[in-house]
Amino acid sequence: MQTIVRLCAGHDVPIISYGNGSSLEGHLLAVHGGVSIDLSEMNQIVSINAEDLTATVQPGISRKQLDEALRNSGLFFPINPGADASIGGMSATRASGTNAVRYGSMRENVLALTVVLADGRVIKTGTRARKSSAGYDLTRLFVGSEGTLGVITEITVRLYPQPEAISAAVCAFPSMGDAVRAVIETIQMGVPIARVEFVDTLAVRAINRHSNLTLREAPMLFFEFHGTESGVQEQARTVQEIVAQNKGEDFEWATRPEDRSRLWNARHSAYFAMLQLKPGCRAVTTDVCVPISRLAECVEETEKDLRGSYLPSPIVGHVGDGNFHVAMLLDPGKPEELEEAERINRRIVARAGDGRHLHGEHGIGLHKMDFLIDEHGEDAIAVMRSIKQALDPKNMMNPGKIFAFES
Amino acid sequence: MQTIVRLCAGHDVPIISYGNGSSLEGHLLAVHGGVSIDLSEMNQIVSINAEDLTATVQPGISRKQLDEALRNSGLFFPINPGADASIGGMSATRASGTNAVRYGSMRENVLALTVVLADGRVIKTGTRARKSSAGYDLTRLFVGSEGTLGVITEITVRLYPQPEAISAAVCAFPSMGDAVRAVIETIQMGVPIARVEFVDTLAVRAINRHSNLTLREAPMLFFEFHGTESGVQEQARTVQEIVAQNKGEDFEWATRPEDRSRLWNARHSAYFAMLQLKPGCRAVTTDVCVPISRLAECVEETEKDLRGSYLPSPIVGHVGDGNFHVAMLLDPGKPEELEEAERINRRIVARAGDGRHLHGEHGIGLHKMDFLIDEHGEDAIAVMRSIKQALDPKNMMNPGKIFAFES
Repeated sequence: MQTIVRLCAGHDVPIISYGNGSSLEGHLLAVHGGVSIDLSEMNQIVSINAEDLTATVQPGISRKQLDEALRNSGLFFPINPGADASIGGMSATRASGTNAVRYGSMRENVLALTVVLADGRVIKTGTRARKSSAGYDLTRLFVGSEGTLGVITEITVRLYPQPEAISAAVCAFPSMGDAVRAVIETIQMGVPIARVEFVDTLAVRAINRHSNLTLREAPMLFFEFHGTESGVQEQARTVQEIVAQNKGEDFEWATRPEDRSRLWNARHSAYFAMLQLKPGCRAVTTDVCVPISRLAECVEETEKDLRGSYLPSPIVGHVGDGNFHVAMLLDPGKPEELEEAERINRRIVARAGDGRHLHGEHGIGLHKMDFLIDEHGEDAIAVMRSIKQALDPKNMMNPGKIFAFES
Repeated sequence: MQTIVRLCAGHDVPIISYGNGSSLEGHLLAVHGGVSIDLSEMNQIVSINAEDLTATVQPGISRKQLDEALRNSGLFFPINPGADASIGGMSATRASGTNAVRYGSMRENVLALTVVLADGRVIKTGTRARKSSAGYDLTRLFVGSEGTLGVITEITVRLYPQPEAISAAVCAFPSMGDAVRAVIETIQMGVPIARVEFVDTLAVRAINRHSNLTLREAPMLFFEFHGTESGVQEQARTVQEIVAQNKGEDFEWATRPEDRSRLWNARHSAYFAMLQLKPGCRAVTTDVCVPISRLAECVEETEKDLRGSYLPSPIVGHVGDGNFHVAMLLDPGKPEELEEAERINRRIVARAGDGRHLHGEHGIGLHKMDFLIDEHGEDAIAVMRSIKQALDPKNMMNPGKIFAFES
């Protein structure tokens, strides 16, 4: 990799690292030309250290390949963005997903990286040890930098013991607000819930059709509990009480592994299921993350907006993190539909207001660049730009992404 | 603060932010002169958001002041480095402490910062929302930067619900190796232990004298369990079984809050207790963090070294994180004792080998600068230096710390 990067650097050719191509915001587009480096065959496990609960892998390994390698180890890697993304890509975009409410995102779960810098120097940003207070946190700087600071060639991630018991459940609510209030109370009680996902009526319909399920077509929460046998039972009892107080109905269990898999596969296929609601459509997705206290209001107002629009726009949300996605389904051949989607998007963004992130987990890429300034302010972007200038002055690493930058 | 920084910048006067003065590595020394800005009266709570589990505070507020403000909220802030450090200082040094095995360090628990940069610009690095994938992770860049990139003027931290039940226990072991093996098994079983601390025989003796306790003078583990009533009981049962299989003896409970406080106050006073083992002494402390699989071997070899030295050198460790401290007690008037301490330190560092951090939680400051290059390599330090160059080209922010830097 060092040789490739040096060659490119010598000829002023941009480099775009390519993992599994599952990013949503145009991260991989060669807007300034250059070489797309396909890392999918650089997919080996370097080591698994069961005692230390770490794995060191090459960047092209996919999440499911890593799962497979861990199958009989009693350990698992929790970050699950749905798509079978590469671990390198997930690091580069600071991915999260359905387990983040308990296990955090890539931010918390990457311990160390090996990175080839724009000029061909190779650095290691950390070690397998759990903690460090040794200088600037270069690991966290490269996690989420979307390929704009270097090529990630090795990643050490945290693993977790497989829980003794896992159970999942679904529950319908009269409204999104009721569902969110149930989640806030659950988190405030300190229930260590592993997953809690919101799916709106339209998204449930999409999932039912796509995955051949018969879920009630109403606002729903999907839950998962991890722990000891008795711990999981206790968590579930507490959550059932909270749900009942918030008008939840039809609490339904999925304790058998095959039922759980079916449920979560359906949830993780939601994006593709939603696309099928409108044949030939494409989705413009929002990725707002608000403090959870503002989530119910924010989503209820959004629902009102969506009812006033002719675009079918299902909502799913990592509700424990305050992060939700609206998928506005539009005909790519109709500019007025794109305009309508952008209109709704602007309203959602404006409503989120202070204290929110406009980018919970999908990153910035090409599509969200305008909003980044809005979120951070010019001075913070200037700081990011000066870091880019320091590490990649010729703008050879995934140029044209995250923020405008002139070499 | 912006005015102060601008004034200083205009006159090329360095700035050293001063919190509560509890850092251990010379972070606050004005090695290039300048203004020490005492932040201790900038200690207000800006807001506590119980629903979102966040608090926003000024940098000078101490950990105990924040605890006091949270007393009746049902929430707590878990990071506890022992000393009553300021939250600003803890952010700047990426502090951790006894709760990190479960709750993480400042790295995981700071959500957002307001920072005045070297040229007087003010930036916000994040929001109260839990997740973000919006550009470079400036929050994590400033956390652990030890005042070298700007003055932190506001911090948003995560809070946690007070556990329904807490219990603590101590247990003696024939050797450090047995104790560490018990901890590895505990973590591999997925027991969500809140604290697990190692204290060697000499450190127990120091603690007994200083805090008027009667703990058995043997290698010991201190445990704390957080959860529901039945969850804590279950955790404790599991740990007791594991401990028994690893030759642990005299498992003793502290379930009453006053007994628990006494125990943890004693543990947190260990530094001062150890200093009293040798009147008039000063301590040179090591801060090695290794993958936990290497901890038993590493500490046992260290113990052998220490037995061959005439310096009294107790050991304490955040064993769940693989992080341990040796306090080598020396007479500051005797250069040969300092030399002896440095000799032992070099052996410990050399033994830690690859895959370790030499700086688990105390930071680099002035004293550990030489070792930083050893740990990261020249190229990674060059990257840190180029970030410093980008943000503080005139080297006005806590100059002379972390790494050598010429403006």
